[in-house]
Amino acid sequence: MPNGVYHLDEDESRHVVKVFRLSEGDPIEVTDGKGTLYTCRITKADARKCLFKIVNEFVQPSKSYFIHIAIAPTKNIDRIEWFVEKAVEIGVDQISFLLCQKSERKNINLERLQKHAISAMKQSHQLILPVLSPLENVKHIVSQSADQKFIAYVDHENPDHLKDKALTGKKYLVLIGPEGDFSKEELTFAEQNGFQKISLGPTRLRTETAGLAACHILNLLNQ
Amino acid sequence: MPNGVYHLDEDESRHVVKVFRLSEGDPIEVTDGKGTLYTCRITKADARKCLFKIVNEFVQPSKSYFIHIAIAPTKNIDRIEWFVEKAVEIGVDQISFLLCQKSERKNINLERLQKHAISAMKQSHQLILPVLSPLENVKHIVSQSADQKFIAYVDHENPDHLKDKALTGKKYLVLIGPEGDFSKEELTFAEQNGFQKISLGPTRLRTETAGLAACHILNLLNQ
Repeated sequence: MPNGVYHLDEDESRHVVKVFRLSEGDPIEVTDGKGTLYTCRITKADARKCLFKIVNEFVQPSKSYFIHIAIAPTKNIDRIEWFVEKAVEIGVDQISFLLCQKSERKNINLERLQKHAISAMKQSHQLILPVLSPLENVKHIVSQSADQKFIAYVDHENPDHLKDKALTGKKYLVLIGPEGDFSKEELTFAEQNGFQKISLGPTRLRTETAGLAACHILNLLNQ
Repeated sequence: MPNGVYHLDEDESRHVVKVFRLSEGDPIEVTDGKGTLYTCRITKADARKCLFKIVNEFVQPSKSYFIHIAIAPTKNIDRIEWFVEKAVEIGVDQISFLLCQKSERKNINLERLQKHAISAMKQSHQLILPVLSPLENVKHIVSQSADQKFIAYVDHENPDHLKDKALTGKKYLVLIGPEGDFSKEELTFAEQNGFQKISLGPTRLRTETAGLAACHILNLLNQ
């Protein structure tokens, strides 16, 4: 267990001291976002630099599966912020952002999305902060490795549901396209690189809903 | 197949004529929100009262299950509007709104929520508009009938996951509590009325996320 005196950053210090009105000697819980929960005690309740020492630590057992969702940001950024929040609540290990041929949005504010992820991690009492990767071309993501690689694509030749194709305990990578869907070329490229085309159910889902549905299906499979 | 000339309401007329710029003779698709899709043709492209006749009709086969989610509206109304949108996309048959002992919000604008439901139904190409029931006391909802009745309640004595307790092809009713959860009294009352306590997974979910997770689990079970 780490010794010594640590401090919270300015935002968290203000929150603890001004909002929660905690003072010296009060207990707080701190996570490193990598699976460890530290039970701590405040040693100096400074609203700009709150000091604490570690009293106890709990290391979360590692999971047997890994969920990586690669999603094209939506035109309306609220929808993708919402996706990040909900995916973190439900459970996700990595989120990548895709630039596709039919993408309506070609930029994201990764720092802002990161804040949403941290807030959702704390809100849902989780100890691991998912990796958020910067926007990059779908062709780059397609070359990444995983045990099972899926691409959500809605067509009439695509009867396979993710819930029937995914196996338990794997490293999954699921691609979710933009509002206008993947181009035929992107689909072919993904299939040539080992991605299976899957459906997420009988209804037509928006991008962010499809991302969350995929994430939830893979979690349920492993619960 | 119904004969005669019909008209769209003012909002839809404006949308068809001004936004989509359709004119006489153009085809449109109209649903009654009760499972029928009508293929129609515009007979008068009036932006205030667009007339059309029915060319063909398709009746969706009825489903073998019925999902009724009864949820306490969240303090921040955006979250419950979001829940309505996403539940409709994923598939839901009835949404009721619960007034609980620990509810932070004691009123809703049912008409506004209805608009979100209609918009999501159209967006996701569905033909059945879920019933949205007005806010009422949790004790009233508890007395309603269903084949399987569940109450989402997070405690350490509650290891049963909804996905393991729900059977296929049933009429389900799932209660989702407010931010402060159901009171012990409400839980006891529900259990006395045949509700089973269930979990929705290992992570702590916000009210609206729990509602959607329950809805998604029941859909997946029946797909």
